[in-house]
Amino acid sequence: MGELFVGIDLGGTNIKIGLFDSGLELIRKTSVSTQADMGPDVVIEKMAQTVRGLLDDAGLALAEVSAVGIGTPGPANYSEGVIIKSTNMPTFKNVPICKMLNDKLGKPIVFDNDANVACFGEYAVGAGKGVKDIVFFTLGTGIGGGIISNGELVHGCDENAAELGHMIIYPDGRRCNCGQRGCVEAYASADSTARRATEAIEAGRQSTLKKVLEEKGKITSKDVYEHLAKGDELAREITDGTAKALAITCINMLHTTEPKRIVFAGGMIAAGEVLLKRIQDYFDEHIWSLKKEPVEICFATLGEEAGIIGAAALAQHATQRGRLR
Amino acid sequence: MGELFVGIDLGGTNIKIGLFDSGLELIRKTSVSTQADMGPDVVIEKMAQTVRGLLDDAGLALAEVSAVGIGTPGPANYSEGVIIKSTNMPTFKNVPICKMLNDKLGKPIVFDNDANVACFGEYAVGAGKGVKDIVFFTLGTGIGGGIISNGELVHGCDENAAELGHMIIYPDGRRCNCGQRGCVEAYASADSTARRATEAIEAGRQSTLKKVLEEKGKITSKDVYEHLAKGDELAREITDGTAKALAITCINMLHTTEPKRIVFAGGMIAAGEVLLKRIQDYFDEHIWSLKKEPVEICFATLGEEAGIIGAAALAQHATQRGRLR
Repeated sequence: MGELFVGIDLGGTNIKIGLFDSGLELIRKTSVSTQADMGPDVVIEKMAQTVRGLLDDAGLALAEVSAVGIGTPGPANYSEGVIIKSTNMPTFKNVPICKMLNDKLGKPIVFDNDANVACFGEYAVGAGKGVKDIVFFTLGTGIGGGIISNGELVHGCDENAAELGHMIIYPDGRRCNCGQRGCVEAYASADSTARRATEAIEAGRQSTLKKVLEEKGKITSKDVYEHLAKGDELAREITDGTAKALAITCINMLHTTEPKRIVFAGGMIAAGEVLLKRIQDYFDEHIWSLKKEPVEICFATLGEEAGIIGAAALAQHATQRGRLR
Repeated sequence: MGELFVGIDLGGTNIKIGLFDSGLELIRKTSVSTQADMGPDVVIEKMAQTVRGLLDDAGLALAEVSAVGIGTPGPANYSEGVIIKSTNMPTFKNVPICKMLNDKLGKPIVFDNDANVACFGEYAVGAGKGVKDIVFFTLGTGIGGGIISNGELVHGCDENAAELGHMIIYPDGRRCNCGQRGCVEAYASADSTARRATEAIEAGRQSTLKKVLEEKGKITSKDVYEHLAKGDELAREITDGTAKALAITCINMLHTTEPKRIVFAGGMIAAGEVLLKRIQDYFDEHIWSLKKEPVEICFATLGEEAGIIGAAALAQHATQRGRLR
């Protein structure tokens, strides 16, 4: 058994695979189309072939691989290694992916959801490196999350912990897709940020974003941040609403698992320093005065590679902790 | 080394000490006055003498004790075993209590804050028994908390995790003693419940509680629940406010560490089923519709003994995990 680790990011469109050394440095990576319509047998065979191909290209042998990590969206029974169903891969129903891939590669397989995997990647080698307690948010269509407490992912009683987008910050507030009201996701995801801007304009607010809505038929969070940079007042208000919702959530997480670092990832961090600064401002304004809180709020650093790095890091972690099966 | 464990609940008024067998069954307990004004040397000598006395009375030898657990309010450096300062014991400043008691008893000492200790007691043998993930709230003057994730207390990066009373549920809401606004503690602690009733009456609301305020000069949460039982409308509204705040907090904890069971303790649970039912009602009303949540919301069962049982349970846990020093 060698010291290499494979990280697989299984998405509905592409499968990204990376080969990493024992320091979690990337040796080689690739991406192939998932073609989920071909069914799980074909997809998993393709995963195995691609891993073998990566090793061949690098002049390395399968025997040198210690373990393989996979991240994919749920719902899944991660500890049992079974994908229950998948919105983006409708042919995947009750697929024992870990056993199937293990049969083909003969390697232990470690499996977790995509947000946890990205969180672990940031923890191992990214923005969360060097501390043992982090909280991780992905700001995309929705808001996903991950929690690492004392160096371990928090999975919860039914492997559904860290659904951080659905913490209620405004009881009886905006309706969320999940059925609750007032979730942070209903205010601060990329989609909700854009939607709040759209609603304000439709309600008659003046803004340079109005022209965008008229011309493109919709507003994106990217539009909001672009118009913020140009000085638009509505864009500023909308950004403040997003930042305040995220800051309140950071305070609540501080009082829960007490992270040393809070890491934001996802498409919306392209907004840059202006968003991060507003989150920090609201955090400072709303946090208690009992003691100074040294928590660091920052952006993720791994970008698109968080999925493969995190999966490899989880595989290494399970190896080191003697948890491989 | 035997199989007995000692649990010590160090408070400003009394020191409670219990001697437990390997099944965490109480063998014998006692309570002595703390007399903190005598200083830490005297107090800790008294703790040691009382432990020896308990063993003598039970006809057992110190050699049969595996470890001793202590719970006390902070601020303390629990992992280092040092009480930094204490509101109720002003003579305790930077007291290395674990080393001092170890010097006297020759036993490993395990140390944690009072809320964590009570949480661990409920987890080990009380309302949280049989599951690996719980969240624990104490409803008293303030609201304290504890989190057990995968069988371990969550301590956080600076041993200040689970300050659950200070999760913000109404941003810009009621001012909390901590300096924040809208903390659950500012609505749902015993003190805040009473205060909200008092404020409503002072603002002119009619209620049978008005007479209590006039006669006693103040209202307690106990008064609120007594008048609720008699059908007072204001008492019902105040109770609903408390229950809703707690229910929102339960939902937020579910989406954070995903407990299987949420346990409420503290003086206010004397309110009984009426409070528990209202918390459950609001939980059911506000929880998402994505899936049915099987989390159980219940009251603690150990009462006043949670402190000594929890301290002994933590001592046993540390022994079993090989964490004794």
